[in-house]
Amino acid sequence: MKVTVSRKAHFNAAHRLYRKDWSDEQNQAVYGKCSNPHYHGHNYELIVHITGDIDPETGYVMDMKILKNLIKIEVEDKMDHKNLNEEVPEFFDKIPTAENIIVVIYDLLKPKLDPSHELSITLYETPRNYVSYSG
Amino acid sequence: MKVTVSRKAHFNAAHRLYRKDWSDEQNQAVYGKCSNPHYHGHNYELIVHITGDIDPETGYVMDMKILKNLIKIEVEDKMDHKNLNEEVPEFFDKIPTAENIIVVIYDLLKPKLDPSHELSITLYETPRNYVSYSG
Amino acid sequence: MKVTVSRKAHFNAAHRLYRKDWSDEQNQAVYGKCSNPHYHGHNYELIVHITGDIDPETGYVMDMKILKNLIKIEVEDKMDHKNLNEEVPEFFDKIPTAENIIVVIYDLLKPKLDPSHELSITLYETPRNYVSYSG
Amino acid sequence: MKVTVSRKAHFNAAHRLYRKDWSDEQNQAVYGKCSNPHYHGHNYELIVHITGDIDPETGYVMDMKILKNLIKIEVEDKMDHKNLNEEVPEFFDKIPTAENIIVVIYDLLKPKLDPSHELSITLYETPRNYVSYSG
Amino acid sequence: MKVTVSRKAHFNAAHRLYRKDWSDEQNQAVYGKCSNPHYHGHNYELIVHITGDIDPETGYVMDMKILKNLIKIEVEDKMDHKNLNEEVPEFFDKIPTAENIIVVIYDLLKPKLDPSHELSITLYETPRNYVSYSG
Amino acid sequence: MKVTVSRKAHFNAAHRLYRKDWSDEQNQAVYGKCSNPHYHGHNYELIVHITGDIDPETGYVMDMKILKNLIKIEVEDKMDHKNLNEEVPEFFDKIPTAENIIVVIYDLLKPKLDPSHELSITLYETPRNYVSYSG
Repeated sequence: MKVTVSRKAHFNAAHRLYRKDWSDEQNQAVYGKCSNPHYHGHNYELIVHITGDIDPETGYVMDMKILKNLIKIEVEDKMDHKNLNEEVPEFFDKIPTAENIIVVIYDLLKPKLDPSHELSITLYETPRNYVSYSG
Repeated sequence: MKVTVSRKAHFNAAHRLYRKDWSDEQNQAVYGKCSNPHYHGHNYELIVHITGDIDPETGYVMDMKILKNLIKIEVEDKMDHKNLNEEVPEFFDKIPTAENIIVVIYDLLKPKLDPSHELSITLYETPRNYVSYSG
Repeated sequence: MKVTVSRKAHFNAAHRLYRKDWSDEQNQAVYGKCSNPHYHGHNYELIVHITGDIDPETGYVMDMKILKNLIKIEVEDKMDHKNLNEEVPEFFDKIPTAENIIVVIYDLLKPKLDPSHELSITLYETPRNYVSYSG
Repeated sequence: MKVTVSRKAHFNAAHRLYRKDWSDEQNQAVYGKCSNPHYHGHNYELIVHITGDIDPETGYVMDMKILKNLIKIEVEDKMDHKNLNEEVPEFFDKIPTAENIIVVIYDLLKPKLDPSHELSITLYETPRNYVSYSG
Repeated sequence: MKVTVSRKAHFNAAHRLYRKDWSDEQNQAVYGKCSNPHYHGHNYELIVHITGDIDPETGYVMDMKILKNLIKIEVEDKMDHKNLNEEVPEFFDKIPTAENIIVVIYDLLKPKLDPSHELSITLYETPRNYVSYSG
Repeated sequence: MKVTVSRKAHFNAAHRLYRKDWSDEQNQAVYGKCSNPHYHGHNYELIVHITGDIDPETGYVMDMKILKNLIKIEVEDKMDHKNLNEEVPEFFDKIPTAENIIVVIYDLLKPKLDPSHELSITLYETPRNYVSYSG
């Protein structure tokens, strides 16, 4: 009797898509205006899904207050109002595409969770583009 | 060639999270302001997902008018504008967390459906907290 | 050059619509299922609009962090996870219809604002029903 | 390390649900007001989900600009501002229920995608009714 | 102490934008794909705003159940699942642009309201295009 | 018989709130994390409202295709995927608060419109913070 509990959070960040080992032309050809050297930014909307058994005593899979706080410490404090390329070490050598950001967030959250819980994440980069990842 | 059809509905209800066999301190420690003895409430948003084969004659997996009516009879009439703890028998001995509510809704709807159909449910307690269950 | 800044907040509360000086039949006739003696509840979504001149030094009409905090202290701390009829003194003698709630919120916020600022409020009781008030 | 990338699009179309080999009474009994001979219409909201490995060089599963363009050519140009029954050949002999439309869209997009990518589609017919399909 | 109460509703309809006294080229030049002779359609989202004094006895500006029912009778029953050009007499001689539709809806609702109430309407033709009218 | 037509658009941009003539401490005190020297960013959602008479011939206040194109040329091409502080000349000497951005957008659009039309703008910086301006 597995139930999934989901919690929404968000953070605002600047980024650019750019490979240092490519020419500007290559970056422009692949990433287009997303490679703008002056950066652009997004309101990232994050949904964290935790799947597990309902605790028969509390009626909770996981206390959402704890999950909310975990997302704040592991993700928001690290990425909110930040420049992902310049200030978040995980992206010093990794391009902050939505795909790479979601894997980084997964790897930040997974070790902090009850090992019996499954983790899945959805990340909206814009209201029309989003990514999902389950490890 | 399985297709899932989904139908949204909603109901407004009061509830509190509270175990009678716990002290007020224990309830407060686990449920925080959700254990307020005077209750609080939510606009619950419910999404019912039915997966099955497309009927080659009608082009439907299931007539959404029938599903809409089933949700009305089994869920809305029972829970809308109600106090879950005081008025919905399923919660007389079960804490109305979102996790427990979704299992109750699943158990209300499943026996009314074509046995060849799979049922899955999503229940928003607030725009930021929701749960999902597939039996 | 007046600009309006708007900030969304929310609170979850229980309420019932009921006049003590009316018979149950009268209450039922006017308020229907909203008069349920066991209460029901909503996720209230609140939008506070402040209109004023842009401060030429800061570029702000009003610092949204201050407005966010003001809404928390004056509205959320008072109404969130509460039973409006039983726990919020303003409704001990006033029926907590959305119309009356919005006037109460307006009267709580207005004295705390810069007198040169105009205040307007929108309050969603459900995603389909909402009220607006400008004093 | 599979990630799903999702892209929203939309198109507006007219349709009616009607079987030529049924009497008007039968059509009315099954499809109700959806069988109106003068048609009615919807703002269809389409979400296309592509699951695959992250390209270690680009950080993309698939370039969303390419996916956006593919949806435009294969779906929007074909169905936007059209009468599905009268102008989209796939529905000359198939009833344009949401279930049938989503299978048609799947069959239009699948051959154009990298064979290593999985395709899944969500189609909203109204904000309250939607369908999903994964082949 | 005027408060505005707002109620959302919706209807799905087919339409085309087309003047009989213009050539097809003129219609195409002005209305583009909206002039498609086979029609297209929308999920129209309607918001009706009523401004008036709070009744000190009920705490209501207007009973939302009455407003909901009025919208159903005057607008939904007339336009939902209909072809506006072919089936709604108000558009036999008037082009069903969003602007003209909203004036027709205003004129249908206004005479049914308390004369002391002000009426304002918002009509979404798509999630990105909408119109507003206050008489 | 004035009707307002509204059109939604969006752009993604980086910015920081910072006055060169203030110390870092002053900037931090007023703008907090919004003054991060490495920038952060937003998905700005823009709604442009045009109020005017319905053209009796076309049934339009203004052709939404023209308005959509005007927003693209005057706003999106200038601000989308840009760093507002570094790349948009209007903000070289003006702090890109939402309040200042909306006035800049107003001043860009107003001269391009029919002088008989009134212009009003709404700009969402995040789903919870937005500003409105009518000149």
